[in-house]
Amino acid sequence: MKTPTLQDFTAQRRPIVAADGVIYLLDQTRLPHAVEILAVRDGDAAAHAIRSMQIRGAPLIGAVAAFGLALYLQKNAGAAALSAAFATLAETRPTAINLLWALRRMQAAVEALPEAQRAARAWAEAQAILAEDIAQNVSIGGHGLAALREHARADRPLQVMTHCNAGWLATGGEGTAISPIYAAQAAGVPIHVWVSETRPRNQGLLTEWELRQAGIPHTFVADNAAGLLLRQGMIDAVIVGADRIAANGDVANKIGTYLKALACADNGVPFYVAAPGSTFDFACPDGNAIPIEERAGSEVRSVAGATGDACLLPDAVAVSNYGFDVTPARLVAGIVTERGLLPASVNGLRQAFPEAARAAQEC
Amino acid sequence: MKTPTLQDFTAQRRPIVAADGVIYLLDQTRLPHAVEILAVRDGDAAAHAIRSMQIRGAPLIGAVAAFGLALYLQKNAGAAALSAAFATLAETRPTAINLLWALRRMQAAVEALPEAQRAARAWAEAQAILAEDIAQNVSIGGHGLAALREHARADRPLQVMTHCNAGWLATGGEGTAISPIYAAQAAGVPIHVWVSETRPRNQGLLTEWELRQAGIPHTFVADNAAGLLLRQGMIDAVIVGADRIAANGDVANKIGTYLKALACADNGVPFYVAAPGSTFDFACPDGNAIPIEERAGSEVRSVAGATGDACLLPDAVAVSNYGFDVTPARLVAGIVTERGLLPASVNGLRQAFPEAARAAQEC
Repeated sequence: MKTPTLQDFTAQRRPIVAADGVIYLLDQTRLPHAVEILAVRDGDAAAHAIRSMQIRGAPLIGAVAAFGLALYLQKNAGAAALSAAFATLAETRPTAINLLWALRRMQAAVEALPEAQRAARAWAEAQAILAEDIAQNVSIGGHGLAALREHARADRPLQVMTHCNAGWLATGGEGTAISPIYAAQAAGVPIHVWVSETRPRNQGLLTEWELRQAGIPHTFVADNAAGLLLRQGMIDAVIVGADRIAANGDVANKIGTYLKALACADNGVPFYVAAPGSTFDFACPDGNAIPIEERAGSEVRSVAGATGDACLLPDAVAVSNYGFDVTPARLVAGIVTERGLLPASVNGLRQAFPEAARAAQEC
Repeated sequence: MKTPTLQDFTAQRRPIVAADGVIYLLDQTRLPHAVEILAVRDGDAAAHAIRSMQIRGAPLIGAVAAFGLALYLQKNAGAAALSAAFATLAETRPTAINLLWALRRMQAAVEALPEAQRAARAWAEAQAILAEDIAQNVSIGGHGLAALREHARADRPLQVMTHCNAGWLATGGEGTAISPIYAAQAAGVPIHVWVSETRPRNQGLLTEWELRQAGIPHTFVADNAAGLLLRQGMIDAVIVGADRIAANGDVANKIGTYLKALACADNGVPFYVAAPGSTFDFACPDGNAIPIEERAGSEVRSVAGATGDACLLPDAVAVSNYGFDVTPARLVAGIVTERGLLPASVNGLRQAFPEAARAAQEC
């Protein structure tokens, strides 16, 4: 097929177009300032796209890893090559469990097959993972909107805050945390979104761009503003995505999420997490067992000026740059999944995803 | 006198040099990237310096306002001119109460005097305010270090986090929240400081610059990182300055402070506030009565890129930019003042500053 245009992505809200053995991606290190479309034709390019955050967002990382494995197998589908491809892709990012989930599913789909059939089967499985994620996004949107609507006040649009980007740029389709917001728009529910900048990588810019494309009213704020806005009653609910959810309901998500959850608890505002089943890690008993990615210090050393300029702190300045934090389950009002709104508890998650809970026990 | 050099400011840790009817200031909108020394020769220039944040920090705002009033009176010391100068300076920034405190003290010092004596008396009073603030900074350093040391672990340097800049750039002398850190260095107490960026104005850069000048070990982090670092036990205490403290101990300080206080409470880490008596507002019963400054949206629209570049969000993007938030007294382990460590409570504050509490009641 021809290289898709920006319109091919935005019109359908799809961050990935996969056809004829090639995957096309919007380069998210360039958005929203510039549009660059990547044609990924081999496994190494897919691994690079994940590692360098050309694409990010736990469900999208999973889907691109699946296609990456399929692309590796197009070159060499032997047992050793399969293991090597799995290992290369698994090491690209440590926190989002969807990555391992997708790779394990891909491996299970192909390892019993004759070598000659593996590549085609892998491509089909990756397409299935993507299609299922898109369908799950839609379900999450419906369940999430039902949860959020309960907190709307009669005198104003529903006021929702989010952190990072968990929209269509982060998933196969409509997003996780943002899917209920698209669902609200589709249902004619008045809504206004508070978009948190999300330093140091500024993924709030991606959310701002998505909402601007969709014509959904929103306000962009510094991460520091969440506490005051919640205390002043300006926010009815907070909803975020997740990179990994432990068996007890503890949630790893973008650094800064935990602070928002604390401010919600202190002000009686519900804090929701939206994620598909592929984000659950029943092998992790709680948040302490979730590995937290540490990223390059240059992200933190790059600081905005007051007037659109910027500076780089000298390399000699020590920085710390963890990409994620863990929000304890006790702060989570509910987890919005494709199977409905779940309590953030061991029993709540196990009852809704018994097959995944069982599989983790058998490991 | 000759215009002072950078060395004249840094060697003594003084953000203001006042002599011969001129005040010299380090332009803090340029630091740390560039050094520009402002010579302020009239009241309008002083008002502009406060309004435009060429200088900031509640105690320093108070001192510069005092000199600003003296400079206005050098031109015209009549009753109408005094009122006009007071009003102009009082309107420059709304949240830091030290501004009003200093102006009221200046007015009380001169209003009963014959016109011809007012300017000289005003200059002397401003010098007294500055000198007292410097002495109070030193006291705060001693009391603050005593409080912080209690939380040190034997196996590592004392780990202290701060927010915004409450060092010598924010006061007359050693600072408020940073003064105990300078005191630790002077006393040979091993210490390491976690410096929070403080979007959107990035005053964490000023703190980073101060600590670098002083050779005090520190690590610069995104504001979002505070929750994870506290949860991982990497921080022994948090200490910040204040722009206004209500009669009940609620604290207005730089936006994002409240989030850090919440994360401290959730992890059993003490959260201290350091401020001189001039920051107390006994006329404010609680934090809800403190006016919160809303600043230009351009500060939030200016976003850092990943590699030292930056972007400006289009003006059409709605932003919200409150400069401060309020931390409830229940989250404050203690308030470090020149009169010692106080509990953040009505009785604690009144007992330590009875004359200020009485004066407010008489208003």
